[in-house]
Amino acid sequence: MMKVERQNTALPLPTVRRYPVYLREIEAMIAQGQRAVSSAALAKRLGLDSVLVRKDLAMTGATGRPRIGYPSVKLAAAVKRVIGWDYSSEAALVGAGYLGRALLRHSGFSEQNLSIVVAFDTDRERIGQTVANVKIESAAKIAKIVREREIKLAILCVPAGAAQQCADALVEGGVRGILNFTSAVLSVPVAVTVQNVDLAQSLAVLSHSIKV
Amino acid sequence: MMKVERQNTALPLPTVRRYPVYLREIEAMIAQGQRAVSSAALAKRLGLDSVLVRKDLAMTGATGRPRIGYPSVKLAAAVKRVIGWDYSSEAALVGAGYLGRALLRHSGFSEQNLSIVVAFDTDRERIGQTVANVKIESAAKIAKIVREREIKLAILCVPAGAAQQCADALVEGGVRGILNFTSAVLSVPVAVTVQNVDLAQSLAVLSHSIKV
Repeated sequence: MMKVERQNTALPLPTVRRYPVYLREIEAMIAQGQRAVSSAALAKRLGLDSVLVRKDLAMTGATGRPRIGYPSVKLAAAVKRVIGWDYSSEAALVGAGYLGRALLRHSGFSEQNLSIVVAFDTDRERIGQTVANVKIESAAKIAKIVREREIKLAILCVPAGAAQQCADALVEGGVRGILNFTSAVLSVPVAVTVQNVDLAQSLAVLSHSIKV
Repeated sequence: MMKVERQNTALPLPTVRRYPVYLREIEAMIAQGQRAVSSAALAKRLGLDSVLVRKDLAMTGATGRPRIGYPSVKLAAAVKRVIGWDYSSEAALVGAGYLGRALLRHSGFSEQNLSIVVAFDTDRERIGQTVANVKIESAAKIAKIVREREIKLAILCVPAGAAQQCADALVEGGVRGILNFTSAVLSVPVAVTVQNVDLAQSLAVLSHSIKV
């Protein structure tokens, strides 16, 4: 199989985190029949600084015209391309408890061209089951299956105590990005990116803020 | 009812977000029989910069001793106090779909002294049901029930299109903090804090990182 080299360099993370927010708004504007999107209009709709939005959009490589803006469909395509949502990605889910099974049924991932193609668990009763068309395999096979299927993304929602061991197996299998729902601080090689979705951290901010 | 005024001023958000991570590690060290915790030891266990950890711990108001560290039990109590986990909080959950029901069954919230005491949905079939001992009420009653029960925290996991309307009702009912699982950018008064758990943003970072 020929591989097309992508020439992107890493963009600033805050910029990358804003792209999905822009994308939703651009798609809403397209649905409303708007053929051009200016950074000023987008900034206004989102309540963001227009200079910030202008810089972010410039980094997508899309070309706009002064006072008119970007062709909206081309801009949406450029944003998708820069965050890698222009082609579909396959992900593995590790930990098929309540949260894991809710994520398997979560329809939102398809918006990001992401599909969970395999799940893993250690519970004998769960192994062999199928949830939302995804088969639950034994966690002992993580590295093997992930490598065979060339899966590069994983979603980790196991108990914190099992998290590092699972992350090690995922990395061994060649995974490059982990969405970590556990409270464990994962140790991974520099080539692997971890995004933590630690509810405790967000809750700490909320409970701190309501008492000050 | 007498209200005890708390004299905390708002701490830097990155510091507040690290407190739950410290707390777990301090509790693990207590479980291992360690009576003192130094910022250097904590930093090493977590792979963080020791100067950063020293400053963060100093802001808890706990008093340590040079070369010995903080008494571990007192430090854990100080961290809990500063993030408001020393007393229990009640939260409302809005949106009892797959994710909402998984969160109702999520045992981790109790670690943060947080209990979800009521849930809301618009689906007639769900209203009246009980999930994990929590009753699902009609979303039309959000403001009323939240006000009556003096609930200050809410967890929002409705479809993005319904998010702002639900947030408005929560704010009307007196909610001060919202954990937002939707992809909507919420508009709330300055006195209300929103923490976004937008999976699309985290996934954008991952998919961008695996292609560069």
